[in-house]
Amino acid sequence: MPSRKGSKKPLSLSEQGLEKMLADWNSFSDNKQKRIFGTLDRRSAEELFLRVHGHAQAELFFCLPEFDRKSWIRLLPPDDAADLIQELPEAGRHHALDLLDHPTRLEVLGLMAYKEDVAGGLMNPRYARLRPGITVDEALRYLREQTRAQVETIYYAYVLDRHQTLLGAVSLRELFNAPSDKKLDEVMTTADKVVFVRETQTQEEIARVFANKEHRALPVLDAEGHMKGIITIDDVVHVVQEEATEDMQKMGGMEALDEPYFKIGMGDMIKKRAGWLLALFIGEMFTATAMGFYEHEIEKAVVLALFVPLIISSGGNSGSQATTLIIRAMALGEVRLNDWWRVFCREAVSGLILGLILGVVGTMRIFFWPARETLYGLHYPLIAMAVGCSLVGIVLWGALMGSMLPMVLRRIGFDPAAASAPFVATLVDVTGLVIYFTIASIILHGTLL
Amino acid sequence: MPSRKGSKKPLSLSEQGLEKMLADWNSFSDNKQKRIFGTLDRRSAEELFLRVHGHAQAELFFCLPEFDRKSWIRLLPPDDAADLIQELPEAGRHHALDLLDHPTRLEVLGLMAYKEDVAGGLMNPRYARLRPGITVDEALRYLREQTRAQVETIYYAYVLDRHQTLLGAVSLRELFNAPSDKKLDEVMTTADKVVFVRETQTQEEIARVFANKEHRALPVLDAEGHMKGIITIDDVVHVVQEEATEDMQKMGGMEALDEPYFKIGMGDMIKKRAGWLLALFIGEMFTATAMGFYEHEIEKAVVLALFVPLIISSGGNSGSQATTLIIRAMALGEVRLNDWWRVFCREAVSGLILGLILGVVGTMRIFFWPARETLYGLHYPLIAMAVGCSLVGIVLWGALMGSMLPMVLRRIGFDPAAASAPFVATLVDVTGLVIYFTIASIILHGTLL
Repeated sequence: MPSRKGSKKPLSLSEQGLEKMLADWNSFSDNKQKRIFGTLDRRSAEELFLRVHGHAQAELFFCLPEFDRKSWIRLLPPDDAADLIQELPEAGRHHALDLLDHPTRLEVLGLMAYKEDVAGGLMNPRYARLRPGITVDEALRYLREQTRAQVETIYYAYVLDRHQTLLGAVSLRELFNAPSDKKLDEVMTTADKVVFVRETQTQEEIARVFANKEHRALPVLDAEGHMKGIITIDDVVHVVQEEATEDMQKMGGMEALDEPYFKIGMGDMIKKRAGWLLALFIGEMFTATAMGFYEHEIEKAVVLALFVPLIISSGGNSGSQATTLIIRAMALGEVRLNDWWRVFCREAVSGLILGLILGVVGTMRIFFWPARETLYGLHYPLIAMAVGCSLVGIVLWGALMGSMLPMVLRRIGFDPAAASAPFVATLVDVTGLVIYFTIASIILHGTLL
Repeated sequence: MPSRKGSKKPLSLSEQGLEKMLADWNSFSDNKQKRIFGTLDRRSAEELFLRVHGHAQAELFFCLPEFDRKSWIRLLPPDDAADLIQELPEAGRHHALDLLDHPTRLEVLGLMAYKEDVAGGLMNPRYARLRPGITVDEALRYLREQTRAQVETIYYAYVLDRHQTLLGAVSLRELFNAPSDKKLDEVMTTADKVVFVRETQTQEEIARVFANKEHRALPVLDAEGHMKGIITIDDVVHVVQEEATEDMQKMGGMEALDEPYFKIGMGDMIKKRAGWLLALFIGEMFTATAMGFYEHEIEKAVVLALFVPLIISSGGNSGSQATTLIIRAMALGEVRLNDWWRVFCREAVSGLILGLILGVVGTMRIFFWPARETLYGLHYPLIAMAVGCSLVGIVLWGALMGSMLPMVLRRIGFDPAAASAPFVATLVDVTGLVIYFTIASIILHGTLL
C-alpha cells in the first residue's frame, strides 16, 4: 500500500478526478508525484500506476516499499512490464525481473531483446488464439474463456496451426455476425489477406499503417510467418505523439529530450541542447570568416553591413519553411526519396516567387525610406538594387537547401529531422553572405566599391 | 464502376498491394490517383475509397460518374460522410447530401453543424445502445443484433434511459466475463465513473485523454448529459498526426498547409508561406534600423560588423530550442500557463550555462586565431571580450524570449505554436544587436570607439 505514513485517511479518487490528475501529472515535480501517490488508497493508486507511462511508471514503482513491489509489477501486461523494467537503472532490472512469475519473466525477457522502437518491442505476446477447423459457436466459447486469461484484447483473434504459423484472423464482430454452426475457416480472413507487421519494423512505419484507418489491431510476424504478438491501436497513439515530439525537438535544433520538460534533469537538458548549439555556433563562425574576406568592401561601404542580418535571416526563414515541410512530409510518407526532382522543381518555383516578393519589398524599403540619402549615401538606388537582387537569390537558395538537405540526409542513412531549421539557417547564412557580397560587388563596382 | 473506359480488364488488388498503394497514395499526383482508381475493380476501388481520408476521398468521389455517386457515398458511416461533404466545393454539397437516405442525411447535417475539430465533429452518432434493467445474456443478444446495424463498434455499449441520458457503459469483454443471468446494471460502469468528453471539446484535448492509455472509445455528451455519439481511438490517431503536423508547420514559420505537400496547389502554398515570410522580413528590417543607429561605431571599427551574424544567430538558435521545447510541452500538457515562473527559472539557468559555453568558445576563437592581429587589429583581446560577453547575454536572452513568448501568446488567446523558431529568431536578432553594440561600446570605449 502506498500510504505508509498511516496517519491520514487514504484518498479515493473518482474516475474524473483521476483523469484530471493524469492530465496534469507530467507537470508535477517528482516530489509532488510521490506525495500524491502516497496519499491514495490502493484502488486509486493502482489505477494511477496503470495509466502513467514508461518513465513515470518506473518512478512510482521505485518509491514503493520493497515487499510491495511484487504485487504491483504483476498488475502489468508483459509489454508494459518490459517497458517499465527498461526504464529502471541497470542494477534494479534483475531484481524486478525476479518479481515476475516464471512464464511472464520469459515473455518479458523475450520482449526486452527487441529494440524499444520496433514492432517486437511494442507488441503484447498475449493475444486471443483459435484453432482452425472449429465452428463459430466453438470459437465464441473459446474467446469467452480467454477473457479470463490476460490477453490484450478478445476483439481480434488469430487462427494458428501447431507451429504458431498464422492461418487467419477474425474479429469478434465477424463471429457475432456469422451463423453459429458455420466453420471458422469460412468466416476468418485468410492469412494472405491479413495485414501484418514484421517484428523488426520501426514504430514510425507501424504508426503509418495504423493511420491508414480500418485497423485496430495488427499481428506481428517473424520472417517465417510465425505469430509473435499483437499491436493494438492504443499503443500507437502514444507512439505517434512520441515520434512527433522527437522530430519537433530535432527540428528545433537539439537532441530529442525523451522525457517531459520538467522531468528531465537540468544537466541532461543542457547536454542535449549544448551539443547542437555548439555545432551550429562553430558552423556560424564561418560567417565571421566570410565577412572577414569582405572586410575591405565593408570599410569602403559600411552601408553594406547594415543589411547583412536582414538578408541572411530571410534566407534562413525561407530554408526553415522548406525543411519543416519536407521533413514532416517524409515522416508521413507523403514525400519519398525518389520524389526529389519534383520537390526540387516545386521549391525552385516557390522559392523564386517568395524571393521576388521579398526582393521587391526590400528594394522599395530602401528606395523610398525618408532618410535614405543620409543613411545609405547618394548611391542608394544601387544599394537598393543590390539588396533586392540578393534577396531573390538567397530566398531561392534557402528554399532549395532546406528542401534538399533532409532528403540528402535520409539518402546517406541519417535522420532527416536533423536538418533542423537552425542547421539550414546556418548553412544559408554562410553561403548567403557570399551571394550578397558577390552581387553587391558587381552592382556597386565603379561607384562605391 | 470506376473503370469506365472498359477496354482493359479491371485490376484486383491484394490486401498487401492495397496497403502498399495507400502508403504511397499521398505522394501520387492527382492525375495518377485518378488513373489508378479508374483501373481498379469495384471491390478494390471501394476498399481504397474507404481507406483514404478527407480531401483524398473527396477527390475520388468527385471523379466518379454522377449516376454512381449515390452507391459510393452510402458506403460511408455518417461521420466520414460529413467529412467528405465538407471537403467538397460549396456547390456540390447539397447535391451530395441529397444522395443520402433520409435518416443518414439528418445525422450528417447534425454533424456538419459542429466545427470539424471538436468532439461533435469527430464523433460517430451510431453506437451500440442497451436498455437498463436487462440481463447480461439479453445484452449480448441485443449487441449481436446490432452488429447488423451500422454501429461504429459493438465492443463498447452504452446504457441509456428514454431521454438518451447516459446511465452507464459496458464493454463486450465485461459482458463476456459476467454470468449470463446477472443484471446489466451490476456489470456496467455507472455514468459517474465513465470518462466522457463534451461535444464542444477540441480534438487536441480529446487526443490527450486518449493518450492516457486504457480508453479505446469515449462517449460524447452534451451539457445535459445526453449521449450524442462515440469517438473511437482509431479516429484519434489521425487527429494526433494532423495536430502535430499543423504545429510543426507553424513552428517552422508558416501557416499550416492542411494538405499533403504534393496535393496543395502552388498558389496556396506560396500564400501560406509568403504571409509569415513577409511579416518576419518586415520585423527583421528593424535590424537594418538598429545597425544604422550604430553606423558610426561600425565605421570606426569595421571589425565589429564581422561578428554580427555569428552573435545574432546564436541568440536565434538558443531561442529556437527554447520555443520548440515549450510549445510541444504545452501541447502535450506537460507545461501549463501557471508554470511560467518555473519555466523562467529553468530557462534562466540553462540559458546562462549555454551562453557561458558559447561565450568561452567564441572568446577563444578570436583570442587564439592565427591571423588575429591583421584581421581584428591590435585590440583583439578587447574584441574577444566584447564578443564573449555579448554571447552570454544574447544566448540567455534567446532562451528567455523563446520560452516566455509561447506562454504569453496562449495567455492572450493565440496559438502558442505561432511563436515559431523564425519569429523568436527575428525578435532576438533585433534586440541582440542592441545588446551586442551596447556591450561593445562599453568595453571598447576609449580604445577603438
